Amino acid sequence: MTQPLRLGIAGLGTVGVGTVKILRRKAALIEARCGRPVTISAISARTRGRDRGVPLDGYAWEDDPVTLARRDDVDVFVELMGGADGPAKAATEAAIAAGKDVVTANKAMLAIHGQALAEAAEAAGRVIRFEAAVAGGIPVIKALTEALAGNEITRVMGVMNGTCNYILTRMQSAGLPYQAVFEEAAQLGYLEADPELDVGGIDAGHKLALLASIAFGTKVAFDAVELEGIQAITIEDIKRASDMGYRIKLLGVAQMTGRGLEQRMSPCLVPKKSPLGQLEGGTNMCVIEGDAVGQIVLRGAGAGEGPTASAVVGDVMDIARGLRISTFGQPAAQLADAAPAHSASPAPYYLRMTLTDKPGALARIATVLGEAGISINRMRQYDHEGGRAPVLIVTHKCTRVALEQALAAMPGTGVLESAPVAIRIEEV
Amino acid sequence: MTQPLRLGIAGLGTVGVGTVKILRRKAALIEARCGRPVTISAISARTRGRDRGVPLDGYAWEDDPVTLARRDDVDVFVELMGGADGPAKAATEAAIAAGKDVVTANKAMLAIHGQALAEAAEAAGRVIRFEAAVAGGIPVIKALTEALAGNEITRVMGVMNGTCNYILTRMQSAGLPYQAVFEEAAQLGYLEADPELDVGGIDAGHKLALLASIAFGTKVAFDAVELEGIQAITIEDIKRASDMGYRIKLLGVAQMTGRGLEQRMSPCLVPKKSPLGQLEGGTNMCVIEGDAVGQIVLRGAGAGEGPTASAVVGDVMDIARGLRISTFGQPAAQLADAAPAHSASPAPYYLRMTLTDKPGALARIATVLGEAGISINRMRQYDHEGGRAPVLIVTHKCTRVALEQALAAMPGTGVLESAPVAIRIEEV
Repeated sequence: MTQPLRLGIAGLGTVGVGTVKILRRKAALIEARCGRPVTISAISARTRGRDRGVPLDGYAWEDDPVTLARRDDVDVFVELMGGADGPAKAATEAAIAAGKDVVTANKAMLAIHGQALAEAAEAAGRVIRFEAAVAGGIPVIKALTEALAGNEITRVMGVMNGTCNYILTRMQSAGLPYQAVFEEAAQLGYLEADPELDVGGIDAGHKLALLASIAFGTKVAFDAVELEGIQAITIEDIKRASDMGYRIKLLGVAQMTGRGLEQRMSPCLVPKKSPLGQLEGGTNMCVIEGDAVGQIVLRGAGAGEGPTASAVVGDVMDIARGLRISTFGQPAAQLADAAPAHSASPAPYYLRMTLTDKPGALARIATVLGEAGISINRMRQYDHEGGRAPVLIVTHKCTRVALEQALAAMPGTGVLESAPVAIRIEEV
Repeated sequence: MTQPLRLGIAGLGTVGVGTVKILRRKAALIEARCGRPVTISAISARTRGRDRGVPLDGYAWEDDPVTLARRDDVDVFVELMGGADGPAKAATEAAIAAGKDVVTANKAMLAIHGQALAEAAEAAGRVIRFEAAVAGGIPVIKALTEALAGNEITRVMGVMNGTCNYILTRMQSAGLPYQAVFEEAAQLGYLEADPELDVGGIDAGHKLALLASIAFGTKVAFDAVELEGIQAITIEDIKRASDMGYRIKLLGVAQMTGRGLEQRMSPCLVPKKSPLGQLEGGTNMCVIEGDAVGQIVLRGAGAGEGPTASAVVGDVMDIARGLRISTFGQPAAQLADAAPAHSASPAPYYLRMTLTDKPGALARIATVLGEAGISINRMRQYDHEGGRAPVLIVTHKCTRVALEQALAAMPGTGVLESAPVAIRIEEV
């Protein structure tokens, strides 16, 4: 175990450069903690020769990450290119086939191809580690896979896209509409090249699918994640939710229900005073609930050079120390195919609607809710604005099916000024 | 690796029984996740035959934990008896000498004898794991030792005694004095047999010393922890601190300074809106700051059957999976002797004092502070109560030495009605 562990690093963007920096600057610390040196044999990126703020001359260069992944002087292939397919996947497959372990930060690749890659790695006796793929520097994969492995996980939740949380908290604090804050975020460089990955919940949905697989011992199933972005969230709802004691978050929730595995990434109301409700700005938070441990909350930076590279280096050091765990915490061949259960778990809902200013308008809405089996927990009617009466309702727990039934029946009452807004309240 | 991992469990109190329950009820899950069964060969406790709510007939019984620790059919000795010395230490030493790995929840034993035990274990090629010893179910040892191992840790903090946090938050919310809440806590069974372990900060100090050792690569040095309990915290200070935007917490802080390792377990003010300030009741929180990862916050139950047993089982599963890491994250022989630096790091302080109602009284106090090089950030003078003027001061950052100098000079001003209260404000 005193042999160096030799890395080949593909991808020299923010995370790749951050990883090289830590491995160089902390070489002595890493060797002391691992009992062996961790070295870089070779690197690869799209463009060579650019000044990346860290000396790279000492490492062999490969134009092709697949060639890098197969090099004899590479023990661990560190994939930091990104992209679900293309070079990242080809090089990862090549690395496994060549008998290398893999460390990756690639949530998209694992959310789509994780099962096949994990099976290939395990057949070859190799490991894939991906702490950096979910919530940056927060050790949520390690917590789920290792520390809490004696628990049956009952629910896992997370605010795992810093950009969305920045947008929502900025709307709240500055009283600005979505579009204005979205443009601010774009100017600040907070958005992915395709902003839909952020604000559409796709990026966070990839992360949720990975957590769900570990938590519930199921094959990663990103296509079963119910995805809803934050684009339709209005400043009106942010303010009204706040009046009722809530914050709106793009919240990922995975839980096993009697009908199958529920995976949702969607805007939810959470109590202002809960750890999730208090989370502001670009910070990430993961909440794990286990039958023995109760609720564990993990909070930290979900992106950025240092935090993400910290996670990559942690994974590399685990391999250097001889830790060998199945990709998703148990052998990939044993992972179950979970039936997807769409919003099966009942929840209270926040409803906002504008009613015509007629006697009995509210009674008709209450009747429609009652007919769907939904009872009202709290209701607030605001001053009439030009004859239109904004109404907020917090329901008791109901199923999504019942809610949809009530929403479908509401236009028939003839008292709605516009379509009602309904947002799930997640009990945290 | 398909051989079962066989445990000998000594101590069948809350944690021991919780551990047996998880190992029985989750046997299939544990086997799937570890790739091998985890079984119990033998158990030991002070009294045999008592109904502990879980069947124990299938396990060999040993009256003497030392004999248990040496059994041929035991691979891992699970020490859940507690106590820094006596049977816990004797049996742990016996286990190591007999070539067994050790999992323990015993913070006192490790805080006092951790260095010697770690050296013995490493000489014998054995591991000692102790996630359950610090903050119950929160995976803070794993986070520090493994996930964040690529970081230089800059500071580690924690609210790690749930009883103290319960007392302080209950004083705050109910407006009750210390003694009344202390008695409530005693009646609720929240206090150790020797309450000084809780309210004197000793229990939490043990935990801090363990975290500091891992964080800074130093020999565990509990005797260098500056300990101050919560017994002197008044409802007056809780209310006044709240007026100024703070909460009082029994906060452990460890950081490496230019003068050596600072380890403090003492009441501190933290901003109300910070994660630490928002922590209520018996919940624990650990905050880790690393140069790459930034700030990571971990929150969860710090005690109780399920959470603590969850941590014990997590450690056992790590061993079952082949993880072998030095007790304190690097070989014990390499851990440094850190010079203790008592309150070397400067901080703002909260000062509360009652002044005589004479002209110029406040000016004299300000002069004394100025002469010690301490400048005032915020000051608040309350209505005079019978001629006595309560004054609150928040200073700018100053050293503890400067503060002591100012406090020593204050009685000489002749304007103090009683000794001033000074509490450190930890910037979190």
